[in-house]
Amino acid sequence: MTRGRFITFEGGEGAGKSTQVRLLAAALAGQGRDVLATREPGGATGAEEIRKLLVSGDPGRWDGVTEALLHFAARRDHLARTVWPALDAGRWVVSDRFADSTMAYQGYGHGLGREPIERLYEVAVGGFAPDLTLILDIPPEAGVTRAHARHDGEDRYERMDLSFHRRLRDGFLEIAGREPQRCVVIDASGSVDEVHATILKAVADRLLA
Amino acid sequence: MTRGRFITFEGGEGAGKSTQVRLLAAALAGQGRDVLATREPGGATGAEEIRKLLVSGDPGRWDGVTEALLHFAARRDHLARTVWPALDAGRWVVSDRFADSTMAYQGYGHGLGREPIERLYEVAVGGFAPDLTLILDIPPEAGVTRAHARHDGEDRYERMDLSFHRRLRDGFLEIAGREPQRCVVIDASGSVDEVHATILKAVADRLLA
Repeated sequence: MTRGRFITFEGGEGAGKSTQVRLLAAALAGQGRDVLATREPGGATGAEEIRKLLVSGDPGRWDGVTEALLHFAARRDHLARTVWPALDAGRWVVSDRFADSTMAYQGYGHGLGREPIERLYEVAVGGFAPDLTLILDIPPEAGVTRAHARHDGEDRYERMDLSFHRRLRDGFLEIAGREPQRCVVIDASGSVDEVHATILKAVADRLLA
Repeated sequence: MTRGRFITFEGGEGAGKSTQVRLLAAALAGQGRDVLATREPGGATGAEEIRKLLVSGDPGRWDGVTEALLHFAARRDHLARTVWPALDAGRWVVSDRFADSTMAYQGYGHGLGREPIERLYEVAVGGFAPDLTLILDIPPEAGVTRAHARHDGEDRYERMDLSFHRRLRDGFLEIAGREPQRCVVIDASGSVDEVHATILKAVADRLLA
């Protein structure tokens, strides 16, 4: 059994990640691959319970360190119960967010810095990493406006101030710059179809060449 | 304002920790100190929500790493919202469990080893540590029997098998052996009054001498 591939989508609020995850998963399935679309925080029974603690309530309910610990707890559950078994079974796994989000939100956005997040990664994830990470990039002003239009109640992060969202974006771009072999920055300001086409080309170049 | 002292109680199930926490807190208050009795996991609003995920449900619902991450998330919230502010205000804080429990349960009991727990400690707790840790020691068979008699529904750990509880006890004794300046092992097989008297003497010797 050939091991599957793990593709992660990253980016700030309102960049269109969940739509693009769905479109990429459908496209890969159309190529005859067995695909699992999933998300973080969540993607497993326990991880979804932890998600509820993270995405709702007052913006200041957790400090940055507690938040990072909760995200890695949910991530470990997601990996152990969902992602690793699927990859072992040869499936391709496409995830809406993964560890770069914790680095961007808590490491850069909340100012914890890279080191504590890297330590948590080692404990929770070990030597494992995505085969490809697509970072959907959009100016923070436009992203927050798009995200507000969703009205899904999971708006704790959206309600953080704009300077937070600017630090987030800078964080994601720095992550991409540090690991160019894993990450591709995708201009997400175009139409859904344009962005999808750019993503398909990146996947073909990086994983199917 | 003189900073308060932080005293933690540790030990396996049914060792009598919560009773002894209450008695010590009352005795210290009787000496005119401002005392806060608290517990882990929990002791703060968010930490109590995380506690619910940890103490109920199927024994196998979390793997050891996820469990350790959740315990340190709850611990960070407890420290940031409850323990550190109380110590800064000059209060004495007495906690039913702290980080040694994660080392014993996940590090020794679940076999993760010391290193991941030490890394999580550095991220979540930093250079802070209890002024005194009282490890209540009792043979695992007796402890589990006592704990079962409680019927409080928070029995996820109690239902782990006896070999787990033996590893736990060995873990606590090894922790005490590695940090004799912080830890005192208390024989908890006597009566409530006997154990309380032993604890009062240890607190007087270590913190009031």
